Amino acid sequence: MAQKVTPRSEDYSRWYTDVVQMAELADYAPVRGCMVIRPYGYALWENIQQGLDRRFKATGHQNAYFPLFIPMSFIQKESEHVEGFAPQLAVVTHGGGEKLEEPLVVRPTSETIINAMYAKWIRSYRDLPVLINQWANVVRWEMRTRLFLRTLEFLWQEGHTAHATEAEAREETLRILEVYRDFAESDAAMPVICGRKSESEKFVGAVESYSIEAMMGNGWALQAGTSHFLGQNFAKAFGTQFLSERNELEYVWQTSWGVSTRMVGGIIMVHGDDQGLILPPRLAPLQVVVVPIWRSEEEKAAVLETARQVQAALGTVRLKVDDREGLTPGFKFNDWEMRGVPLRLEIGPRDVAAGQVLSARRDRLGEGKEALPLAGLRERIPALLEEIQRALLERARRFREAHTAYPESYQELAAAVEQGFAWAWWCGSPACEDRVKEETKATTRNIPLEQPGGSGRCIVCGAEARQMAVFARAY
Amino acid sequence: MAQKVTPRSEDYSRWYTDVVQMAELADYAPVRGCMVIRPYGYALWENIQQGLDRRFKATGHQNAYFPLFIPMSFIQKESEHVEGFAPQLAVVTHGGGEKLEEPLVVRPTSETIINAMYAKWIRSYRDLPVLINQWANVVRWEMRTRLFLRTLEFLWQEGHTAHATEAEAREETLRILEVYRDFAESDAAMPVICGRKSESEKFVGAVESYSIEAMMGNGWALQAGTSHFLGQNFAKAFGTQFLSERNELEYVWQTSWGVSTRMVGGIIMVHGDDQGLILPPRLAPLQVVVVPIWRSEEEKAAVLETARQVQAALGTVRLKVDDREGLTPGFKFNDWEMRGVPLRLEIGPRDVAAGQVLSARRDRLGEGKEALPLAGLRERIPALLEEIQRALLERARRFREAHTAYPESYQELAAAVEQGFAWAWWCGSPACEDRVKEETKATTRNIPLEQPGGSGRCIVCGAEARQMAVFARAY
Repeated sequence: MAQKVTPRSEDYSRWYTDVVQMAELADYAPVRGCMVIRPYGYALWENIQQGLDRRFKATGHQNAYFPLFIPMSFIQKESEHVEGFAPQLAVVTHGGGEKLEEPLVVRPTSETIINAMYAKWIRSYRDLPVLINQWANVVRWEMRTRLFLRTLEFLWQEGHTAHATEAEAREETLRILEVYRDFAESDAAMPVICGRKSESEKFVGAVESYSIEAMMGNGWALQAGTSHFLGQNFAKAFGTQFLSERNELEYVWQTSWGVSTRMVGGIIMVHGDDQGLILPPRLAPLQVVVVPIWRSEEEKAAVLETARQVQAALGTVRLKVDDREGLTPGFKFNDWEMRGVPLRLEIGPRDVAAGQVLSARRDRLGEGKEALPLAGLRERIPALLEEIQRALLERARRFREAHTAYPESYQELAAAVEQGFAWAWWCGSPACEDRVKEETKATTRNIPLEQPGGSGRCIVCGAEARQMAVFARAY
Repeated sequence: MAQKVTPRSEDYSRWYTDVVQMAELADYAPVRGCMVIRPYGYALWENIQQGLDRRFKATGHQNAYFPLFIPMSFIQKESEHVEGFAPQLAVVTHGGGEKLEEPLVVRPTSETIINAMYAKWIRSYRDLPVLINQWANVVRWEMRTRLFLRTLEFLWQEGHTAHATEAEAREETLRILEVYRDFAESDAAMPVICGRKSESEKFVGAVESYSIEAMMGNGWALQAGTSHFLGQNFAKAFGTQFLSERNELEYVWQTSWGVSTRMVGGIIMVHGDDQGLILPPRLAPLQVVVVPIWRSEEEKAAVLETARQVQAALGTVRLKVDDREGLTPGFKFNDWEMRGVPLRLEIGPRDVAAGQVLSARRDRLGEGKEALPLAGLRERIPALLEEIQRALLERARRFREAHTAYPESYQELAAAVEQGFAWAWWCGSPACEDRVKEETKATTRNIPLEQPGGSGRCIVCGAEARQMAVFARAY
């Protein structure tokens, strides 16, 4: 018997951990709070990387690499930044057997060390914009950790750009937010709400932060990507200046933005079910698994030959023929369902005779199998994978709609955030936000860019409010 | 005027640093011994990564990711390993504002932490082989550092495999050595000598180490990749055991292997000349630069239109049209020559009229330009890039041959290593090796797999010797 994951209704948190471990996406490392990303999980991350990297390059960005170690004094140069990160730092005090004169911080994020370089490289408006991204590991000393969602060390990309004008930097901030939205929805089949973070939820050191927020299978929110307008905060701390066209020395305007291995956790929780993982075809390490079924050696030869023909015909599809011996087809079905492979093709002797395969969609378990003629597979399978991709996005959208409320009273808000997202008018005061957080554990996820218009009364204090915020429990 | 690099004959070391900095491959970081890899250098590294990653996957390897931090006690489990690495460790003693109970080491290499996981994952012979690679940053506290060649932090890939038998692990060690040779020669146009390292030069913790050794432009050697047969050393230290087909508990047999950002330094020093960098087309971030030449607005429109047509025709070639204003064609020529772009195409009004472009090969500066008809560019340019690729490898081979000696006496050996590589019979004794190192600064680079056969007299002590070693000064 294949292993079974804990049902979501029984214990959502346990379900998540079961899926991560049984599908061999990741494992706990022997260092507190750290994880090992196993090959299947890393292949998923590689596909996420490619989807993002392609979009960054198409919008004019280049990759580079900055040091892991940051002098402690750099972190202290931007006052809000140090306050936010000080409790989370890992500190190297010894190197090469000697105590260091100045401790080095293992980067929690790289605004400071990158500004130290930009201050050296940028001289004139001709050097701008600087559009750089880095793929790297970062460390934040978290107390409560959870595989992929919050770990001491995680992998991410961090973009850091410098511009001649405020308008250009603000435009870049939103351009990247749109890149993130497009990636999340098109590749991860994950519907997201684009919006601005409240003052208390924004990045330490930013003027404004924007995020994409997705709804998980338990109605909680996950911040799946952030894009920050940094203004001139870091430029002033590091003296990152340029000679403008008018021949004046000015500080650059900056942005930073990131998506991390959290995205893997989000994909698990947006799509997974009680059988395990469901992966969107565009990101799935394996898009199709072929399970040949035989009883005799003669049958085996025939079904394996057909399986190889299917594999050859589907050259560009990420496909595996599961010809493992000593395992029943039923075991294999469960195994690949648990691992979330979007499409299964079964080939038995009768299928060979009929010139067909039986297909079973991972997103429609129990809805029967469809016979597909061998002749048309080369066109049919890629089309079917795209159908599954669309269906997953639609299903996630419907789930989010079904778990989104528009409360008209504080009581309704408190009840709504137990189930999912609550859109509510908010006056913008941190006091109102804090009360909701204390009493319901929900926070403002963001203030969506797409607002209904008009105004209303703050759901907490009743004062006039010009914006709606999305409130939710969050990871 | 474009910047000029220091001539190699004047100061080879200065030439190297000039090229790295002026071509904007890398820069010094504000942390001692660390570097920043700039976009042009990182794009080169990305192409190296792709060339290697493709080969690893084609030979059945998968990527994964293991933690940056390793408990100090892990490093101490393999006795040779800790002895070798102890002086080079960066140590995290504080996290989240508190002193840690056990200090964490920033990984200098990952055999130990990976074995801790393999010991957990591997149960039976059915779980073997495990063929995992990781792309990661590592830290070794070096005293004397040099951009790309030796930095406190560097980027690399490290493969770690586990096998049921010694024979399989030995086979894997050599399979990867061949992958490295093929990459170095085919993609980096860098001829290498494959061989076994001597006892004193091998990896700490390995039973045997193998390397690919390349000759730099000053006759020195660079170890450009290593593949280690680890035997059961780490398996015994970490209890990495499996139940064999005979139902007996056995230790796995292991390998590890790596190529790092050093490879970038090697490419610079194998191919570069007094004009700067020369990049092999298969790895060059830009393979072709098109320089349009105009004097009037009318001419400009015509040459730019042709340049765009060339760009469109060469869709898969990594090509840039340098349409920067305010810079002379001569400045642009020098600039791209310094940056090592393999092929330049010039398009002036007369070329437009004649339906041609003028091509200039970076590897044949001063040998004239060839007119290429526009009509055939789609086929001609990729073919020309392959010609350049081959020519670079051939030139490097000839250079190595011209700087390789077969000394017959110790005096000849001492003289030979001033100029390049010396192949000499060696009895295998560390004492002889040490004497050469002390008196000439040359070390045994490796004992080539391809031996002349027969036997001779040790170049140092005159005892019978069954193997030739390559002696050279090395980075």
